[in-house]
Amino acid sequence: MTARTQGPVRVVGAGLLGASIGQALTALGVDVALADHSRSAVSLAADYGAGRAERPDDRPALVVVAVPPDVTAEIVATELASHPAAIVTDVASVKSGILAELSAAGADLSRYVGSHPMAGRERGGTVSARADLFIGRPWVIAAPAAAGIAWRAVEALALDLGATPVRMDATAHDRAVALVSHVPQLVSSLLAARLTEAPDEAVALAGQGLRDTTRIAASDPALWVQILGANAPAVVEVLSGYRTDLDAAIAALQDPSAPGARRAVAETIAAGGAGVARIPGKHGTSKRFATITVLVDDRPGELARLLTEIGDLGVNMEDLRLEHSPGAQVGIAEIAVLPEAEARLIADLEAAGWRIGASE
Amino acid sequence: MTARTQGPVRVVGAGLLGASIGQALTALGVDVALADHSRSAVSLAADYGAGRAERPDDRPALVVVAVPPDVTAEIVATELASHPAAIVTDVASVKSGILAELSAAGADLSRYVGSHPMAGRERGGTVSARADLFIGRPWVIAAPAAAGIAWRAVEALALDLGATPVRMDATAHDRAVALVSHVPQLVSSLLAARLTEAPDEAVALAGQGLRDTTRIAASDPALWVQILGANAPAVVEVLSGYRTDLDAAIAALQDPSAPGARRAVAETIAAGGAGVARIPGKHGTSKRFATITVLVDDRPGELARLLTEIGDLGVNMEDLRLEHSPGAQVGIAEIAVLPEAEARLIADLEAAGWRIGASE
Repeated sequence: MTARTQGPVRVVGAGLLGASIGQALTALGVDVALADHSRSAVSLAADYGAGRAERPDDRPALVVVAVPPDVTAEIVATELASHPAAIVTDVASVKSGILAELSAAGADLSRYVGSHPMAGRERGGTVSARADLFIGRPWVIAAPAAAGIAWRAVEALALDLGATPVRMDATAHDRAVALVSHVPQLVSSLLAARLTEAPDEAVALAGQGLRDTTRIAASDPALWVQILGANAPAVVEVLSGYRTDLDAAIAALQDPSAPGARRAVAETIAAGGAGVARIPGKHGTSKRFATITVLVDDRPGELARLLTEIGDLGVNMEDLRLEHSPGAQVGIAEIAVLPEAEARLIADLEAAGWRIGASE
Repeated sequence: MTARTQGPVRVVGAGLLGASIGQALTALGVDVALADHSRSAVSLAADYGAGRAERPDDRPALVVVAVPPDVTAEIVATELASHPAAIVTDVASVKSGILAELSAAGADLSRYVGSHPMAGRERGGTVSARADLFIGRPWVIAAPAAAGIAWRAVEALALDLGATPVRMDATAHDRAVALVSHVPQLVSSLLAARLTEAPDEAVALAGQGLRDTTRIAASDPALWVQILGANAPAVVEVLSGYRTDLDAAIAALQDPSAPGARRAVAETIAAGGAGVARIPGKHGTSKRFATITVLVDDRPGELARLLTEIGDLGVNMEDLRLEHSPGAQVGIAEIAVLPEAEARLIADLEAAGWRIGASE
């Protein structure tokens, strides 16, 4: 595979995102120069295959600023000034403020492309970097004043990393991430915080529902203070609507036999169902696909045999989930396929002796 | 395996829990009589291997009442009266109210054992039943007035189904499930409800964090109205503390540069991290297994080829998850294996040309 990205690429900040970008570009044969205020972070990232240490004579074609949100605007401005021939992009998760700061500072916005790869992990740091971090993820590009050549360079970067470039207005982006990322983070943290003083016997009853709702609560406080602070107006707007609904739910449950109380609770749960149905892709499985449930004996090779037969039928699985409880003698494979393939696949698998579960 | 449970067992209610219990007991050779106000539900459950239809001359040793929470106390009372030699248990997710109702009605509490298997699925109904539903899950037993023989019968049932019996006070149980189950459900529903009026381009940016926090929002409103109504005081107590914290977070973000605001936000996120760290067991995949990430091209048969090679190596997958975004050219298979198999499997797969992602 040949890189679309024109190097050399200078990556400023050798944390999770910077090192992951460096790894992916290096694997494509692009020359990546790493800069970080920590020399040991640069060495570590280089050891992880993310590129080489920067040199004074570097003349980057593209600079990727991957530093904490608080200092992103300042470093983008410095890079624009230091590398007057380079296109400069950043990966910070809030875009309007940086744009406003750069504009106020008189930076050359024709060479600046704000971007936000929608990828991350609960764990940060160079050692968590992985070249596949961006595969299949949206990569938002918000740069109202950038020249076409600058846009295209960052789109090429996103494509090289396996991401899907999405052009958005910076304000629309910030509202969107408040809704799909920043408020979920706060809600999850606030929920998990309720557990801190709970009795052990209560926490011991935790199931998958609590695990899922609180998984992202394990995120880094220092990073999230910056993100939430940078996007505070949009976050407060979403949270205010959330609080109104919460107050209504509490009021209904304070007198659950009052007229209308049960209906209010039912509508809260139903509205959640309507909201979650809008999320594209999967929950277990996507609404866009049909799901077939197949029972698979718990033996090495059984699932492979199933998937080989599906492949032999020329059917492409869109998604696969194996549910398997330790100790159970059988697993359940949930296979998502295009709806038009469903009926034939079920018939063919049943003919081949597979046990098909109830469809949904 | 011989059943600990002494039959015949009468299961009242052939939905998800009743049919799952019936399947597991039937597989152990226990005679299971199914009762439901819907005759077709009984037939369906019988077809799924959950037992046989009840007969007028049935003399059950144990009755399991698995009906919606609203009618559980009434049906338990009826069963205690109709089967004076039987032990009667229920599986409703709130315990204090049922106990109070039975006590007020003068029921024979020496034969009643309140219980709550901490298991379920977003999908309810007979067709979602599975014998392994309870494996490894806590099964709370709360029955202050029950005789020892009654306690032990329900503990035997829990053990037969692979669950772990946990004795708890009914009030402590109800507070615990408010915290680990009922409030997470409401919080998830309220969060997902925010998505109902969001622009498509915003929802399109959803990532795994939003998916995880809103997964349980897809649950059944009618069931949750009953559960939340039955446990309203305990739920309101937890929600009130949650709202206090939410108000503090909103206040901090309304003026994020005010003195103390950043610290308040940081402490919210940190408290969430402390809370989530208390949850026992797994996040994503079990700590008992090692997870290997393999990149798989989006072509029919590729995943089958991978799994065939894994099977040929004699390695049994404990779990499998395919992450695949629509439109992406590559998927990510996360494969859980026993830790002792990890290093060899990675080496063998790399030797066979597979791209392995960063391990965690």
